[in-house]
Amino acid sequence: MKRTKITHLLNSKEFGKSFNVKGWVRTKRGNKNVSFIALNDGSTINNIQIVAEASSFSEENLKDVTTGACISVTGKLVESPAQGQPVELQAIEIEVLGTADPQTFQLQKKGHTLEFLREIAHLRPRTNTFGAVLRIRHHMAFAVNKFFNDKGFVYLHTPIITGSDAEGAGAMFRVTTLDAANPPKNPDGSVNYKEDFFGKETNLTVSGQLEGELGAMALGEIYTFGPTFRAENSNTARHLAEFWMIEPEMAFYDIHDNMDLAEEFLKYLVQYALDNCSDDLEFLNKMYDKELIDRLKSVVNTPFERVSYTTAVEILQKSGQKFEYKVDWGTDLQSEHERYLVEKHFKKPVILTDYPEKIKAFYMKQNEDGKTVRAMDVLFPGIGEIIGGSQREENYEKLLRRVKEVGIHEQDIWWYLETRKFGTAPHSGFGLGFERLMLFVTGMGNIRDVIPFPRTPQSAEF
Amino acid sequence: MKRTKITHLLNSKEFGKSFNVKGWVRTKRGNKNVSFIALNDGSTINNIQIVAEASSFSEENLKDVTTGACISVTGKLVESPAQGQPVELQAIEIEVLGTADPQTFQLQKKGHTLEFLREIAHLRPRTNTFGAVLRIRHHMAFAVNKFFNDKGFVYLHTPIITGSDAEGAGAMFRVTTLDAANPPKNPDGSVNYKEDFFGKETNLTVSGQLEGELGAMALGEIYTFGPTFRAENSNTARHLAEFWMIEPEMAFYDIHDNMDLAEEFLKYLVQYALDNCSDDLEFLNKMYDKELIDRLKSVVNTPFERVSYTTAVEILQKSGQKFEYKVDWGTDLQSEHERYLVEKHFKKPVILTDYPEKIKAFYMKQNEDGKTVRAMDVLFPGIGEIIGGSQREENYEKLLRRVKEVGIHEQDIWWYLETRKFGTAPHSGFGLGFERLMLFVTGMGNIRDVIPFPRTPQSAEF
Repeated sequence: MKRTKITHLLNSKEFGKSFNVKGWVRTKRGNKNVSFIALNDGSTINNIQIVAEASSFSEENLKDVTTGACISVTGKLVESPAQGQPVELQAIEIEVLGTADPQTFQLQKKGHTLEFLREIAHLRPRTNTFGAVLRIRHHMAFAVNKFFNDKGFVYLHTPIITGSDAEGAGAMFRVTTLDAANPPKNPDGSVNYKEDFFGKETNLTVSGQLEGELGAMALGEIYTFGPTFRAENSNTARHLAEFWMIEPEMAFYDIHDNMDLAEEFLKYLVQYALDNCSDDLEFLNKMYDKELIDRLKSVVNTPFERVSYTTAVEILQKSGQKFEYKVDWGTDLQSEHERYLVEKHFKKPVILTDYPEKIKAFYMKQNEDGKTVRAMDVLFPGIGEIIGGSQREENYEKLLRRVKEVGIHEQDIWWYLETRKFGTAPHSGFGLGFERLMLFVTGMGNIRDVIPFPRTPQSAEF
Repeated sequence: MKRTKITHLLNSKEFGKSFNVKGWVRTKRGNKNVSFIALNDGSTINNIQIVAEASSFSEENLKDVTTGACISVTGKLVESPAQGQPVELQAIEIEVLGTADPQTFQLQKKGHTLEFLREIAHLRPRTNTFGAVLRIRHHMAFAVNKFFNDKGFVYLHTPIITGSDAEGAGAMFRVTTLDAANPPKNPDGSVNYKEDFFGKETNLTVSGQLEGELGAMALGEIYTFGPTFRAENSNTARHLAEFWMIEPEMAFYDIHDNMDLAEEFLKYLVQYALDNCSDDLEFLNKMYDKELIDRLKSVVNTPFERVSYTTAVEILQKSGQKFEYKVDWGTDLQSEHERYLVEKHFKKPVILTDYPEKIKAFYMKQNEDGKTVRAMDVLFPGIGEIIGGSQREENYEKLLRRVKEVGIHEQDIWWYLETRKFGTAPHSGFGLGFERLMLFVTGMGNIRDVIPFPRTPQSAEF
């Protein structure tokens, strides 16, 4: 008999009909007359209850049906007399596909700490929490692609291995095939990268933006969605060495178009989660964060506040609030400042614009005032910066001035500079850290718990 | 005035109405009375013709409107008297956003070789060919996600940086932050990877399958879609050091279910291209490969042939064909053999199954005969192997035997082995090289021309 997924069966009304389900045993309980098996197959957070009458299934028959075992059950669908579940399956045949020795299987029904589950990341997708998080992650990834596809954007696969170190967004991992113990050397003792695989030093990308701009200057509107890397020794709940990033880049967009798109995009994603992940969100809302769903709805229904960096600094200075770090025009805002603006002052998502040139990247469009650039950061409650973006400097001379100021060698990004030489146009873009989005949508507190196999300093297991 | 994309304008019937378009000049021609500007914005392979009357636009006005320049045009939409284009835009206002000096801009209207275009990969998306290829690439990526999403599969982001070298699918790139010239050493002179970023030696993944199986053993049906890497010194038209791969993995699927899914998937993707990329396919069909569209249609309409490796060997041995490599049971088939089977013998896509154990990976399910495994390779006309997959060995002892035989250390993949210890189940999966699919769908001959920025030995530009 063909297998039916539990998510479909739970919504079926074909009572009296036989079905086959396969999945992993969450719990077994019962008495001498009957056993109740809660079975989950990953298609939904909800289990189907299997009812096995002692008249058909002896204790011996069911001895291997323990938590974590994989079983195949054929049975008759009936309305459930129990509360909280619409249907149950009266077992006719139960086959154990794979046992799970209760003495050694680590995922017993008692709750586990998230810290412990990180150590068994190969098994944690079988828990309610990680089943929910990973299903939501799937839906968010699909929503990203659907949003841009529906608008006619082109998904551009920018390179992961890069020979350019001009991005300047963070410390990089080197990619090499040279003999690690005895690398070929130049006469001056430095490593001779000409003998490396790519004939030069290469690293893992920290951003696909520069290549994304090349795409936008030909295809109009593009986006990237892929892994990015930071070799920073940050052991925090907000940092990963490997994470996924979404970077749209649009020809002919100014900073206002860019803000409109960012706000529409975030609202679309959150609404998509509310529409498509309700069971999983309700579970997370109940177990981890009682305000989760309310917070998601609030973001969808609230226009984001748009305010300049300069105004924000004034608000902070006048706030009377005691901050650990002093706020001065020209310094970068700290997390405590961003949270004050979002959570206390405006009480909604905030888009800060027009930051001082000195604290922002070289490619941002220079304002007329000679000291600020057309940057835009979207700040979210509980998260801080969720999106960073800008209108790009499309003027060749102005861009070149900044390239030189920040110490990038012209010859390292000749190809990037050429977009401003040949058919340049106003354009804009932004970056969304996918795991930051996941933190917001799931309410989880640690970024290691919203990616299947986290990579952090001293940890690359599985 | 809000910009209208050219793809929308070409399908508009709002004659007499004013529109604004922005894009890059492909060509300008004309006489003393009128200029015709072919403008492209990347939203479609088709240009819109801008008609600029000399009475409104002098030669001096249009001197910067040269091939490659970026312009903004406001004008009135009219039916086109010219053949092959439904509409044209009678210019009212033309603004040059970015010039392209004809003396230095390399993409003049004359044709360029694909080899030359690889050297200017930062500009080649502005050509018809690469515009077409990149739009098709987008649609194929979206179709991959849509296919699996609609079936309830979970998109699982398996790790790019891996501490495991058990995959065995190919040579790997090392990922490190150690001082390259003076790495820390152990007393025996070997590199002390304990001081590296992750506290051990790490590499770029060659496959997400092993982690994908962890997902399938919890969520039921998952797929990966991400970059993978091979540090092989292969300078061929079929190899990249960095490429994208799709790897679905399904609990409770046997090899037949796996073949059904692979065939349905490939047909879905090709049909999606036919349905959504007709203009771009027609261009490629005309310019590169006159049989392209016929070949795509044929794949969609033909049941794939399913035949065992053993039978295939017999067919080849009896063929009377002269092969460079002799065919013997137990040796891997060469490209010439695969092409004979697909293009000459069966004249359709072929799925070969049940290969000798010795030439396949350790994780494939062992057949009863003691010498073959439940592998399945899908062979395509002109491409050869486009998909490789198998039912997986779900029995712990049998898997462990093969792990030891091929020399993998048990402790390196304890987490993988545990899926067979706790709630194991029959399961299957396969891998599709995304650029192989792109070669088939676009008819391009070199894999470097179906990815935006190819990475190959001695080459990591842009």
